[in-house]
Amino acid sequence: MLLAADRFIRLALEEDINSEDVTTNAVMPEYRKGQVELICKEDGIIAGLRVFERVFKLLDGNTEVRFDVQDGDRVTKGQHMATVVGDIRVLLSGERTALNYLQRMSGIATYTSKVAKLLEGTKTTLLDTRKTTPCMRIFEKYAVTVGGGANHRYNLSDGVLLKDNHIDAAGGVKAAVLAAKAYAPFVRKIEVETETLAQVQEALEAGADIIMLDNMTPELMAEAVKLIDGRAKTECSGNITRENIEKITAIGVDYVSSGALTHSAPILDISLKHLKALEE
Amino acid sequence: MLLAADRFIRLALEEDINSEDVTTNAVMPEYRKGQVELICKEDGIIAGLRVFERVFKLLDGNTEVRFDVQDGDRVTKGQHMATVVGDIRVLLSGERTALNYLQRMSGIATYTSKVAKLLEGTKTTLLDTRKTTPCMRIFEKYAVTVGGGANHRYNLSDGVLLKDNHIDAAGGVKAAVLAAKAYAPFVRKIEVETETLAQVQEALEAGADIIMLDNMTPELMAEAVKLIDGRAKTECSGNITRENIEKITAIGVDYVSSGALTHSAPILDISLKHLKALEE
Amino acid sequence: MLLAADRFIRLALEEDINSEDVTTNAVMPEYRKGQVELICKEDGIIAGLRVFERVFKLLDGNTEVRFDVQDGDRVTKGQHMATVVGDIRVLLSGERTALNYLQRMSGIATYTSKVAKLLEGTKTTLLDTRKTTPCMRIFEKYAVTVGGGANHRYNLSDGVLLKDNHIDAAGGVKAAVLAAKAYAPFVRKIEVETETLAQVQEALEAGADIIMLDNMTPELMAEAVKLIDGRAKTECSGNITRENIEKITAIGVDYVSSGALTHSAPILDISLKHLKALEE
Amino acid sequence: MLLAADRFIRLALEEDINSEDVTTNAVMPEYRKGQVELICKEDGIIAGLRVFERVFKLLDGNTEVRFDVQDGDRVTKGQHMATVVGDIRVLLSGERTALNYLQRMSGIATYTSKVAKLLEGTKTTLLDTRKTTPCMRIFEKYAVTVGGGANHRYNLSDGVLLKDNHIDAAGGVKAAVLAAKAYAPFVRKIEVETETLAQVQEALEAGADIIMLDNMTPELMAEAVKLIDGRAKTECSGNITRENIEKITAIGVDYVSSGALTHSAPILDISLKHLKALEE
Amino acid sequence: MLLAADRFIRLALEEDINSEDVTTNAVMPEYRKGQVELICKEDGIIAGLRVFERVFKLLDGNTEVRFDVQDGDRVTKGQHMATVVGDIRVLLSGERTALNYLQRMSGIATYTSKVAKLLEGTKTTLLDTRKTTPCMRIFEKYAVTVGGGANHRYNLSDGVLLKDNHIDAAGGVKAAVLAAKAYAPFVRKIEVETETLAQVQEALEAGADIIMLDNMTPELMAEAVKLIDGRAKTECSGNITRENIEKITAIGVDYVSSGALTHSAPILDISLKHLKALEE
Amino acid sequence: MLLAADRFIRLALEEDINSEDVTTNAVMPEYRKGQVELICKEDGIIAGLRVFERVFKLLDGNTEVRFDVQDGDRVTKGQHMATVVGDIRVLLSGERTALNYLQRMSGIATYTSKVAKLLEGTKTTLLDTRKTTPCMRIFEKYAVTVGGGANHRYNLSDGVLLKDNHIDAAGGVKAAVLAAKAYAPFVRKIEVETETLAQVQEALEAGADIIMLDNMTPELMAEAVKLIDGRAKTECSGNITRENIEKITAIGVDYVSSGALTHSAPILDISLKHLKALEE
Repeated sequence: MLLAADRFIRLALEEDINSEDVTTNAVMPEYRKGQVELICKEDGIIAGLRVFERVFKLLDGNTEVRFDVQDGDRVTKGQHMATVVGDIRVLLSGERTALNYLQRMSGIATYTSKVAKLLEGTKTTLLDTRKTTPCMRIFEKYAVTVGGGANHRYNLSDGVLLKDNHIDAAGGVKAAVLAAKAYAPFVRKIEVETETLAQVQEALEAGADIIMLDNMTPELMAEAVKLIDGRAKTECSGNITRENIEKITAIGVDYVSSGALTHSAPILDISLKHLKALEE
Repeated sequence: MLLAADRFIRLALEEDINSEDVTTNAVMPEYRKGQVELICKEDGIIAGLRVFERVFKLLDGNTEVRFDVQDGDRVTKGQHMATVVGDIRVLLSGERTALNYLQRMSGIATYTSKVAKLLEGTKTTLLDTRKTTPCMRIFEKYAVTVGGGANHRYNLSDGVLLKDNHIDAAGGVKAAVLAAKAYAPFVRKIEVETETLAQVQEALEAGADIIMLDNMTPELMAEAVKLIDGRAKTECSGNITRENIEKITAIGVDYVSSGALTHSAPILDISLKHLKALEE
Repeated sequence: MLLAADRFIRLALEEDINSEDVTTNAVMPEYRKGQVELICKEDGIIAGLRVFERVFKLLDGNTEVRFDVQDGDRVTKGQHMATVVGDIRVLLSGERTALNYLQRMSGIATYTSKVAKLLEGTKTTLLDTRKTTPCMRIFEKYAVTVGGGANHRYNLSDGVLLKDNHIDAAGGVKAAVLAAKAYAPFVRKIEVETETLAQVQEALEAGADIIMLDNMTPELMAEAVKLIDGRAKTECSGNITRENIEKITAIGVDYVSSGALTHSAPILDISLKHLKALEE
Repeated sequence: MLLAADRFIRLALEEDINSEDVTTNAVMPEYRKGQVELICKEDGIIAGLRVFERVFKLLDGNTEVRFDVQDGDRVTKGQHMATVVGDIRVLLSGERTALNYLQRMSGIATYTSKVAKLLEGTKTTLLDTRKTTPCMRIFEKYAVTVGGGANHRYNLSDGVLLKDNHIDAAGGVKAAVLAAKAYAPFVRKIEVETETLAQVQEALEAGADIIMLDNMTPELMAEAVKLIDGRAKTECSGNITRENIEKITAIGVDYVSSGALTHSAPILDISLKHLKALEE
Repeated sequence: MLLAADRFIRLALEEDINSEDVTTNAVMPEYRKGQVELICKEDGIIAGLRVFERVFKLLDGNTEVRFDVQDGDRVTKGQHMATVVGDIRVLLSGERTALNYLQRMSGIATYTSKVAKLLEGTKTTLLDTRKTTPCMRIFEKYAVTVGGGANHRYNLSDGVLLKDNHIDAAGGVKAAVLAAKAYAPFVRKIEVETETLAQVQEALEAGADIIMLDNMTPELMAEAVKLIDGRAKTECSGNITRENIEKITAIGVDYVSSGALTHSAPILDISLKHLKALEE
Repeated sequence: MLLAADRFIRLALEEDINSEDVTTNAVMPEYRKGQVELICKEDGIIAGLRVFERVFKLLDGNTEVRFDVQDGDRVTKGQHMATVVGDIRVLLSGERTALNYLQRMSGIATYTSKVAKLLEGTKTTLLDTRKTTPCMRIFEKYAVTVGGGANHRYNLSDGVLLKDNHIDAAGGVKAAVLAAKAYAPFVRKIEVETETLAQVQEALEAGADIIMLDNMTPELMAEAVKLIDGRAKTECSGNITRENIEKITAIGVDYVSSGALTHSAPILDISLKHLKALEE
């Protein structure tokens, strides 16, 4: 992932260090080796440790990070998670950017983990969406998988999802699915949104791989799943609460997707503490 | 702002459209003019309309957006906010990226507005921090101002904030402030963190412009403010709730900063609906 | 496609115009309006007209291209295909880069069209591969579709193809397919290479979506297709000649892929001629 | 060459790895050291070994490539050419991009070598043109030299070649050459296209350094060479076959240029085989 | 500074090495270790040694530079300043770019040092401006500090300076200062240009942090400083000569800024000499 | 030139506008049309008007610049040179970057013009060097031509200049020239440095196109020119003063090159004045 991630991390560093870190350079004009500790300040699931490390490595390839935990570990308030060793100026200048990534990714993993738990023991899988923060998709989608969710398509180029506007443009569900099958690379699965049983029937006849059941009542959704009868995968989207999740899983929908995993998860509080100089 | 924003918006578009929008191109192989409506789905404060517009303009300079609202307006569920007119393929391909920006920026403005309201009628100003999402700072800091907050420094290059680690490195509050005054461009204000009255005293003697009162009890903070007596601006940070906000404002701290404004605000739900083709 | 294509086209222009077009600027120091004709010099299928146009538009947005043909048209030697109108300096400076794209894309479309013709009337579809010229994939894969071929996956991120090395790493066909199903986003189809009937059987049991029949004799391939019996799509790769194509299509393989479409098609000869100045 | 090449190689890698290599990461979730062998599958001239190596180095600086051959070597089907050692995930993810460069560059070197052989023992030198694949010029022109050809100008900024359109714009061969001599940096040689003896005469009088003999019959070309009599270098372009090459070399033209070297050479087939894990 | 500087240095290298260093590669086709000496050819202040080193490191990370001096040292004609050791091709190819940075930065440091000397013993500090060479600001502003000057704001985003045009737009000095205080992040100091005592008075009342005394006679400036009486910092700009500097410092202005430091300092002559090959 | 220049201009704008122009946005929150006048403050030669215009166009394509002068014109103190019309915020935000380019380019043109005047009426041509400011070469070399100088090679890729270090590496002048002729594209002229008549003789025998006469006394230089006798072009470099220029031109050297043209020319003072709002 790092090659693809580097462009974004570099840009994030440039965003925070336009010319120089004035504060650090004022108090630390020369190289001095030091270390600082990565401490968890809230219970959760940690995600993004390699991105955290990469921020420092891009500033100075000689920085070393020694981890006590790995992505996906459940961490608790006060837990020591890593030690970062290197030029003290680099430790100070990279701190905020490194933590901004780690906190956001861990926040998503933590939130995803809670939602995924509601689905445990059912056949329904939790999915993310493209409702990610701009320039953060690669990091946020990874964090979802660390938290126990699964990824839907990555972007507009690598998946087909025919929504209401596409269906209108094509002149109906069937026409839309057929157009997509004709146009899209054959390795793409074709997903289509449906709102009625008639549309579900059309989708099946046209050979859709995945049928999104949109804005349906639980009763209608149950009928749709019965009608589909395993001939396509089923997905529903929307607000997942303890109450409605039971209905959905009882119906046996294959996938439930949630934009909130990436667009509304609060961060996990993490900090770098106890900087100290080291003898060499 | 647009020149500086364009690099990020372009990267966000490339993130979502790696080669092409397969779904749209399947059902809409040729240019066709159309329009789509921007509808609010939740009450809040709108922010980011020009960024929303810019996403479409970067895809196709001929796209037009007609706004009914402007940044900072209070919007309500169901409200029509704008009409986007252009090549239907552009409307479909730009939708998600445009909304991802607008929803996040409006979410921050809305959340900031709620917190800022708690400070109304006091002399205390609400500030953001550098705890922003990577590659989103320019957008998120702007959204804070739309919501009624004020911006702290933009990045490490344009402000000086001496934290505990810097103070340790310099050998004390006084030494740190003096080092910063000697090193930083003279247009920079010098801010320093303090945890005790002795440190506050040192900061004052060294001529700090802003004194951060960190981890102090309300009582200690009150003493600090009294000691400072207008000779420097005062800032405190941390969790702002209805309860603790009253204590802080009663003490008369000048600024209170909150990382949550940018790192934990949920999005504001907004959608593009009712796509229709237009005759030409 | 243009947003994604622009980065490449810009780089190609910078490759050819490092500081300035010395020759053109020597003989044409000032703006003068002119036009030049796009002429076909060889029979073939034209592809890449919008890329051709984009090269000039990136140099000067006021350049206009009036097309007599469109992508996919069969063109013949001597045929007039377009007129480019604009600043003569732009017409001269953009010529080579614009033709380099158009010639290569049309060459691929022309070659693909010949191969696709061999498959006409059969149920077998012609596919490209990732054996494209570096930094040309978006253009070359599009040209394949213009020529009547279909696209396989675009890149390593948007498709799963388990080859011998992956299978060894996973410990067998079945393990590899299961690992991929567990790891890949659910919208990805899982393709796996097989060399024996036993491997085909494993692939089927593990639920592969596509089975590549690699290095099999026609007889073995026929047995494999019979064994698969529609439970997965089948693909074979390799040299496509009039002789072997009949065997493959007789067997009823779904897809046949050819790297030569993109890596070894000669260009189609096209030129810009008859530059003349225009009165304004 | 590597600094200049890196921008292109990075872009090529990003083209193939948009977010991650899904297949490889599915079957190989952790670092494991391994090696893979570079095997020639066709007779030819190898070119591009350092670019091949660079692809892996950019993915992971720790990858090592041990070469048995060097650029310019004649290689034969089945020959072992190199061993690549490193993180197995890197070996798998970089394979296609590394081979796409190596195969294309070697294809050009091989094809060039065949054409150059036709000129052996004559005073005529084989040249390439600017008819290269976009974003591949640095690689393709280098491959031409490996194959025994020579480079013409690199781009529009570093050479002057007055073609028919430039001559028309300037008002004749003489005017064009004089304009170029006045405008171009003095280190540039001035080349001009001629179609008649009168134009050749003008070119000589104006002091052209190189005279291109365009669309001339062998008889006319011979007269032109005689007229020029060593006062300028001579170049002809066009289709080089065993038949016409003898005529050209007999006439004693200094240079013959061929666009086909770069635009129509088929690749040389090469593969990476026998991946195996290594103990550490 | 290096992260922020790298983008510029890379671009400068690409500017000088578009495809390859033809001269060097002609005479030195293979790696050979060597060293070359950095010699001062003029008395001055050296600045930019790490940038000089970085140029070679970006070409080849294995290059080593052993310094005898450090930034800020006074150097004299003929002095040996450093030895660069590495691949001879890298030493030759990087020479010009490395020297272009070092000579310009040292020229600025040397010139600044001379001007700063005129202010020694006074309370007036020498400042630079934004009149820097495009794409050189990070290097030039650093060189000013090495020469004993201080930096004014870095760019338009990190400092507020209300000039005549801004004052007109706002409707007066007071309105301008108040608008800036309301809009700018609170860590920004507000500076405003004044030309009369009435404007100075307005600036004071509005709470400007810094007052620029523009185009004032020494007498008027003296009155202005007296009026301000330490309630704001004072700055004057313009031509600094031995004659007028005494008047300014006598008046007790806090800062005097000079665009000439960066826009008109001649370079310091430095060269790389005595290249020799090394045994390994 | 603009395509090639844009990357640099964009970077220069980003250097000056990191997030936003705080001052301008504070006093001018909304669009308002206005104009500002470009005034010369010093006598000189103007150069860079299109770059000046491009800065504003890149900020806002709707900005218009109406010129009263063109590049190469002799301008005088107080002269009105252009009017810039557009969004007042754009006029203010682009001012400094636009002037930084224009002042530097005009400074170089002015200085070059003075030196070129010393050569008037002689056969000796004035040349620039590669001693340009990093990231400014395209602008500075153009300014030299506007001032009446001629360009030497643009960079290391498009010209061959064998210096002492290259000669040592090759084992002598003759070997160096022959190596360069064998390696360099045939459109490159070969230039070689010589310090003795013996070296001049070697250079002639090897067929050098240009012979640099380095560190020679006028007497030796005269002998060298006599020996060369028109068989190669001659160049000398170094300090050009009224005194030594007469000797050089008397000797009849073809070219004299001067690094000072680009590395030590002071700027030409130019400003934007009289901003005023316009009715629409």
